[in-house]
Amino acid sequence: MREIIRANNSGFCFGVERAVKQSFDFVSPQGRVVTLGPLIHNKDVTQKLANKGIHEISMEDIPSLMKEDTVIIRTHGVAMAVYDELKEQGVSIVDLTCPYVINIQKKVKLHHDKGYKIVILGDEHHPEVVGINGYCNNSAYITKSGEIDFPMKGKICVVAQTTEKQSNWVKLITNIAETAKEFVAFNTICKATEDRQKSAEEISKEVDAMIVIGGYTSSNTTKLYEICKKNCPMTFHIENAGELDEIKEKIKNAVRVGITAGASTPEWIIKEAMENL
Amino acid sequence: MREIIRANNSGFCFGVERAVKQSFDFVSPQGRVVTLGPLIHNKDVTQKLANKGIHEISMEDIPSLMKEDTVIIRTHGVAMAVYDELKEQGVSIVDLTCPYVINIQKKVKLHHDKGYKIVILGDEHHPEVVGINGYCNNSAYITKSGEIDFPMKGKICVVAQTTEKQSNWVKLITNIAETAKEFVAFNTICKATEDRQKSAEEISKEVDAMIVIGGYTSSNTTKLYEICKKNCPMTFHIENAGELDEIKEKIKNAVRVGITAGASTPEWIIKEAMENL
Repeated sequence: MREIIRANNSGFCFGVERAVKQSFDFVSPQGRVVTLGPLIHNKDVTQKLANKGIHEISMEDIPSLMKEDTVIIRTHGVAMAVYDELKEQGVSIVDLTCPYVINIQKKVKLHHDKGYKIVILGDEHHPEVVGINGYCNNSAYITKSGEIDFPMKGKICVVAQTTEKQSNWVKLITNIAETAKEFVAFNTICKATEDRQKSAEEISKEVDAMIVIGGYTSSNTTKLYEICKKNCPMTFHIENAGELDEIKEKIKNAVRVGITAGASTPEWIIKEAMENL
Repeated sequence: MREIIRANNSGFCFGVERAVKQSFDFVSPQGRVVTLGPLIHNKDVTQKLANKGIHEISMEDIPSLMKEDTVIIRTHGVAMAVYDELKEQGVSIVDLTCPYVINIQKKVKLHHDKGYKIVILGDEHHPEVVGINGYCNNSAYITKSGEIDFPMKGKICVVAQTTEKQSNWVKLITNIAETAKEFVAFNTICKATEDRQKSAEEISKEVDAMIVIGGYTSSNTTKLYEICKKNCPMTFHIENAGELDEIKEKIKNAVRVGITAGASTPEWIIKEAMENL
C-alpha cells in the first residue's frame, strides 16, 4: 500500500494566487489585455489565459501597444524605466507585482539614493532581479552563489530575491562581513518560500521518492528540487501530472512518496498528480 | 647573533597618544584633577601621572568631588548617565574619549532611539563596552565570542568594541544572518587595532620567540598575545621590560625575536625591552 504525503506550504503563494485570480477576473473595457512576460511559470495557466484572450508580450512589443490596451505586470515586478515606457505609450496598467517584491524595490531605491552600493543575492537573469536592479540604476552587484569576487568598500545594502536559499544568504552575509565596514542587510527571502523549503526538506527526509512539481524555468521550484534531491536521491522534477507516467516505473517500489510544488503550481495540477500516483 | 624585529603599528594608538599627552599637559586652574578609572592600562604611565598629582578615582567617589575639581574621562568613554552625574556634581570635565568610541556611542543611541535592538561584540565588563551600553539604556545584548544563544528577532544594530578580533566579528554576523530579517552592521573595530593585529600576525609567523608588551588587563594586548601564540608557541606577555629577565633564559636559543605592544604601551617601554633583549 502506497502512502502519498503532501508537503505543507506547497503550491501557489499569496502573491501568485492574487495575480492569477485578478488576471482571470479582469474584464477589459476596450482594447487588448496582455501580460508583460508569462504571468507565472506554468504553461497550463498561461494557456488558459490565452484561451481567455490574454496573451503574453515581451518588452520589445511595448512600442506597438495602443492607448486602449491594458498591460498586466506580473508578480516579479519591473524596473522603474518600464513604467515610464508604458506611461509614455498611454496604456492602462494592472500592477500585480507581489507586495513583498515592491518592498525590496523601495528599499533598494531608498538606499541607492542615500549612496549605498546595492548587493542582490539572486539570478541576474531572473525578471524579479532585473526589475529590482532597475531601482538602483542597474548598478547592483548580483551574486547567485553568495560568493563575492572583490572586497566590499563603502556603505552596502544587501537584499535577496524572494525565492533564494537561506544557506546562500548566510554565505553572502559572511563574505560581506569579511570586508565591509558598514552594511545594512534585509533578508527579503519571503516567508512562503522559507516555509515551503522547510516543509519540503522535512518530508524529503522521510520518503522513498519525492516529486517536485513546477515550471522548469521557475526559480523557487528548482531550489525545492535541489533541497529534496540532497535528502532523497529519488527526487523528480515535473511540470504537470502527465509527466508522471515515465517516472512511475522508476518509483514502483517506493512505499512512501512525497509531493511538493512551487509557488506557481496551481492546486488542480497538484491534485491530479496525487491521484495519478 | 640575535635579530630583534619590531612589528609595525605597535604601541600607542592615536586615541591613547592624545589622551596621555593632554593629561600630562593639563594644568588645573584650581582644585584636584582626577581620572575616572586608570587613564590607560599601563602602571608606569599611571604612576607618572600620580607623581604629577593626577590620581585615579572610581565611580563611587564621584559624590565626594568638589566644584573646583576636574575629572578626566579616559579613551574608553563613559555612559551618558555618568556625564549627568558629573554635571550634577558641578565639576569640570576633560573628555578624552577616543573619537572612534564616540562614533560607536552615537550610532548606538541613534539606532536604539529608532527601535533597534543593540548587539555589541565585546567584553561586558570592559569599560568601553559598559560605556557604549549606557547609550541604549543598558539594553544591549553583549557577546564576547560571537556566539548568540537565541534567535535575533526584529531590527538589529550590531557594533563592536574597538579592540575586538575580526574573526569574532565575522562569526557574530554569520550567526545573526541565520535568524535576523533586518540588521545594520557597523564594524567598529578600529583600524589601528586591525593594523596592529595584522602586523603581529605576520611577524609572529617568522620568529622563534615573540614578546607582547602591554597591561595584563588590556583587552587589545590580550588579543595580540592570542594571535601571536597561535603562530609562535614561544610567545610571552609582559607589562614592562623588567619582566624580561625571567623570560630571557627560556628564549636563549631564539635567533629571531619579534616584539609588539598594545595600544597603551608607551614608546619608552618598547625601546627599553628591545635594548634589554
